[in-house]
Order: sequence, then structure tokens, then C-alpha cells
Amino acid sequence: MTASPASLAAFRHLLAELPGPDQQARADAEARNAVLTKPPAALGRLEDLALWYAGWRGEAAPEISYPQVAIFAGNHGVAARGVSAFPAEVTAQMVLNFQAGGAAINQLAACFGATMVVKALELERPTADFTIEPAMDEADFLAALQAGWDAVDPAADLLVTGEMGIGNTTSAAAVAAALFGGAAEDWVGRGTGVDDAGLALKAEVVAAGLARHASALGDPLEVLRCLGGRELAAMAGAILHARMRRIPVILDGFICTAAASVLERASPGALDHCVAGHVSAEAAHGRMLDLLGKEPLLSLGLRLGEGSGAALAIGVLKGALACHSGMATFAEAGVSGG
Amino acid sequence: MTASPASLAAFRHLLAELPGPDQQARADAEARNAVLTKPPAALGRLEDLALWYAGWRGEAAPEISYPQVAIFAGNHGVAARGVSAFPAEVTAQMVLNFQAGGAAINQLAACFGATMVVKALELERPTADFTIEPAMDEADFLAALQAGWDAVDPAADLLVTGEMGIGNTTSAAAVAAALFGGAAEDWVGRGTGVDDAGLALKAEVVAAGLARHASALGDPLEVLRCLGGRELAAMAGAILHARMRRIPVILDGFICTAAASVLERASPGALDHCVAGHVSAEAAHGRMLDLLGKEPLLSLGLRLGEGSGAALAIGVLKGALACHSGMATFAEAGVSGG
Repeated sequence: MTASPASLAAFRHLLAELPGPDQQARADAEARNAVLTKPPAALGRLEDLALWYAGWRGEAAPEISYPQVAIFAGNHGVAARGVSAFPAEVTAQMVLNFQAGGAAINQLAACFGATMVVKALELERPTADFTIEPAMDEADFLAALQAGWDAVDPAADLLVTGEMGIGNTTSAAAVAAALFGGAAEDWVGRGTGVDDAGLALKAEVVAAGLARHASALGDPLEVLRCLGGRELAAMAGAILHARMRRIPVILDGFICTAAASVLERASPGALDHCVAGHVSAEAAHGRMLDLLGKEPLLSLGLRLGEGSGAALAIGVLKGALACHSGMATFAEAGVSGG
Repeated sequence: MTASPASLAAFRHLLAELPGPDQQARADAEARNAVLTKPPAALGRLEDLALWYAGWRGEAAPEISYPQVAIFAGNHGVAARGVSAFPAEVTAQMVLNFQAGGAAINQLAACFGATMVVKALELERPTADFTIEPAMDEADFLAALQAGWDAVDPAADLLVTGEMGIGNTTSAAAVAAALFGGAAEDWVGRGTGVDDAGLALKAEVVAAGLARHASALGDPLEVLRCLGGRELAAMAGAILHARMRRIPVILDGFICTAAASVLERASPGALDHCVAGHVSAEAAHGRMLDLLGKEPLLSLGLRLGEGSGAALAIGVLKGALACHSGMATFAEAGVSGG
């Protein structure tokens, strides 16, 4: 299973037969949680997180020892329409910054003990302008899914996927609108900081993309191919690979969640191995999380991408598992129960 | 300044002349933040946190390398009234658990690289039942303030104060009601898990305490002496000591915040060196934070105490400073601005 699926049909096939968590490990974790030296449920969501993680890892008292952050970068045809506050060359410049260790995500990955891999996806060959034609042809789309799949370290015990791509909030908004419905205006936001005119332009571009690809909107993978980008497809491929290996995933912000939503719409429950790391300042992100039934762990007004919000949430998840797997029981500590 | 103040008058004197942050260091940090490789404000509250921390530490690009968690335990006369779901002997049992490394806070402190000190405060001699007489006489109150002060390591660059004390949500509710007004019912909650009858009893006990000490309620330190407990007084002493040394503090939950509020009511601005680590499941905690103007970093339904929510927030603060002090600037990375 290490090699990525060889065809789009193979990806579709995997989505139809996703593995679930280990129910026995989860039950064993629940039994352990009930006798730890704390009042019942006093650790709140940390307890839920620990039980969820234990089930996916198939261990009653696991540790998080090898988190991986996988960052994907892509360039977008729609960037030429002026939908971003930054020029398209920034994507490649930021990849160099990731490789040199200078970006926010480098600091956060190091802070929480995560290894980091960066994949630049054909930056010199942007996707097509989706208002005119599909962003990717089938070969490009398959290659991006495979790049994401192949970036996942099978030994990782936690995955964060992040992205960089000038113009990609516009692409993500188009994907979200196609998957969840609603008007283009409901899904666009200020991204890295566009003004009112930029916001109106983003809505116009998204609406044009939805109209151009109306016949494809019923198929989530086609939505991703026609309106997404290589880094979005790669994140979807990585999250699917993590599911096949029962590696829990922390979702990042608007763009990551839009990419992940493709899997959920294609196969309900496909994101059961994922938690929402944070809700970003991009207003439509909160709406998307609500529609997915995911409550974010953090709400700190981040809107950077790069996997930054999810990487910050590694700390919360590590704390949850440290408590669950490291605490003494009432019997071990000689503490009286309530 | 290492030795604790020798009298209550000396503590009062300190509250009248609190040091502020280093404005030059803060300005230097703001200048740095403006040129880091990210869109303006894209790291949201992480940027605010980094600037706040830089000001208090007096450095434009500081690191967090020596966080300290200080846990104080005390026993309460009101516990004999049946206000807790757990028996009073649990306080001493949990101190042994802290010392053996088996409690939640041990795991969280280790997870975020914090050293931890535990101070058991005269557990064999509970405070007086505050419905009958002041919880502490002046000598006991001074000793508890001093114990807190002395527990702070002057070399720490971040402080978390936490507590353990069967019955102390009742004490904290009485302190909060005295400081902020409102009915006893507004400030009591289920603590470690009391039922409806227990909740009504807590309100009754708090109301009786407020009535008994009505003449003392205008003086925040007298509120703490009459209605508080040794661990609450120790947290106030520790937070004041941190202020004098410009050591930033992360506040924990309901009980910690009630103790800290004594300082704020005695000297407005006394908690400017503190952030709220989380909002707990104890409903009155959110109200107290609103009244203090503190927005919590986390909201994960914790209600354990022990400094657990604040310790979890060490990760957020470390992440904020890692980004601020470790990221490349646009010029260093050769990235185009917006």
C-alpha cells in the first residue's frame, strides 16, 4: 500500500472501502480513562481527543512520537485575474523560505516536535484558469493526488497537511461552493488581505468557475479537478493515505478543509480520522466546519495557511495523549474516588 | 526582592507601585513583526501574544526557555459542610500524586517543557469555616502569600499557577461574588461534580459567608483572607512576585482567576502581565474573565484545576514566540511583499 494508487479509478475504489477505528482499543481506552486520577470528564475535550486517537491508532494508551507536517505548494491560473494581494512569484519564494526554515510553519513544526516535508508541485506550470477550462486535466490531477499520497510517511503517528499557493483561497472557495452549495459570495473572503474590490472580483471569478463547470459539480473528485489546484489535490491524497494507514490527521484552515471536504462528500465519514485544528479568520471556514460537524480545537484568528493552525493544535493533541497515557489511576496513586 | 515581603503592609505597598512592560522592547517587537514573512496580522492572536510577551520580558525577539508551573494545595473548613463530591483527604492524596508524577498537570508540564514545584500548605490544619469566622487570621494569610511568593523561581520566563483543594470552588465563588458583586447563585458551579442539592448547598454557604463578612468586602485583600484559602492566597502572592520580576503569567481556571482577581481589584492593571490560558466548564469562569477583560486562549471544557488549562496554553504561547523570534523577514528570505 506504500505506492500511490495508479489511477483515478483506484482512488475512487479506496474511497468506497475506508477502514474504521479499532473499537476494542477505543473501549480499552475508555476503561482506562474512567479510572484516571481526576473527576469524571474533568479534562473535557482532551478526553474525547485521547479516546478518538486511541481508536485510530489501535492502542489503549498510545503516545504521539512522530508527527509529520506535509506542505504542498501550487500555482493557480486564476492568480492572473488579480484575486490575491500578493504576486504569484511569492509561491516559489515561500517554498525556498520553507526549505531554508524561515517560515511560520517551520517554527511551529520544530516547537511541537514534528518532521516537515515540503513538496512544490510544478510551480512553473500553473493550473489553468478555471473560469475557462478545468484547472487540471486527468493526468495532472492524478499526479497531484499521488504526490500527496507519496508525501505521507507510513511511520508517522499524526499528520498535518498544509499549503501555499497564491490565489488558492479563490480556488478553495469555488470547491466549497460546488460541494456545499450557496452563492459565491458566501464562500469568498479576504485571504491574505484583498480590499473590497478584490473581494468582489473573487466572488465574480468563483461564480464564473461554477457556471463553467456546472455539469461536473455532482462529482466531488471532478469538482476538485476542475476548480481546485495541485496543492488541494495533494492534501486530499495525503489525507486519504493517512486514513488507509489509520494515521490521525489535524485539518488546518479554509483551503485544507475545502480539499478534505472533497473526500467527505465523496464518501461520508471519510474524515472521521480527522479533527479540525482551528477555525481561521476566513469567515467561510467556520461555516464549512459546521457543515462537516467538526468543532475546532483552537480559535485564534489565524489566516496564514501553511498548516500553521493545525501545527499549533499538535500541542493540544500531545497534551491530551500525555494525560491519557501518562496519568496514574486512582488505585495506583491511592487516591479516594468521588 | 527575592525574599517575600515581611508584612501585609509590605504586600499592599507593592500593589501601589507595580512595574509596567518595557515600551521600547515592545516597539522593537512590533517593528520586527511587521517584516516577518507572512501577510500582515495573518498569525492573529499569536502576534498579539508575542508582542505582549516581548514587552514584559524586555526583549524584541525573546524565547520561552524556562516555564515554571507552581501548584499550591490547601484544605478548607467549608469542605466539612459537604460542598464537594470528593472527601477532604483527597487533597493530601493528590499532593502525593503530584509528587510521584501521576497527575494530569505532571504530564502537561513535561509535555511543554515546564519545571514544576508543588507546595502543600498546612493541609493538616484546614482554614476556618468562613460562614463562622475569617478563613485565615492575619498570620496565616501572610504566610500563605509568602509561600506563593517564595515558590516563584526568579529565573523563570513564564509562570503558571495551579491549585488543588477539596472545597475550593466554593471558596473561589465567595471571593468572586465579594469582588464582583452579584448573587451567590451567579458564582457557584458544579466543581468536581456535585448534584443539584450540592449546588444549592454551595450557594447557601457562599451567601452565608458574604453575609458574615459584609464589613470586609470593600477591601480585596480582606476578601481573600476572610473567604479564600491558603492556595488562593499563595497564587495571588506568586502572581504578584511574577509581576515584580516581569515574568509573564498564564492564568488557569475559576479558582486561579478568582485569586488573581484580588490583585486586579486592589490595583487596576495588576494582571496586565497575565493572559487567560483557557475558559473552564465552570460557568462563572467565563463571566469572571469578561469582567477582567481577558479573552481565553483555549476553550476545551476543562474543569480540573491543577493549572492544567494554563499548562496546555504554554504550547500556544511557545508557538507564538517561536514564530515571532524564529521567522525570517521578507528581506532575509527574498520574498516579495504584498
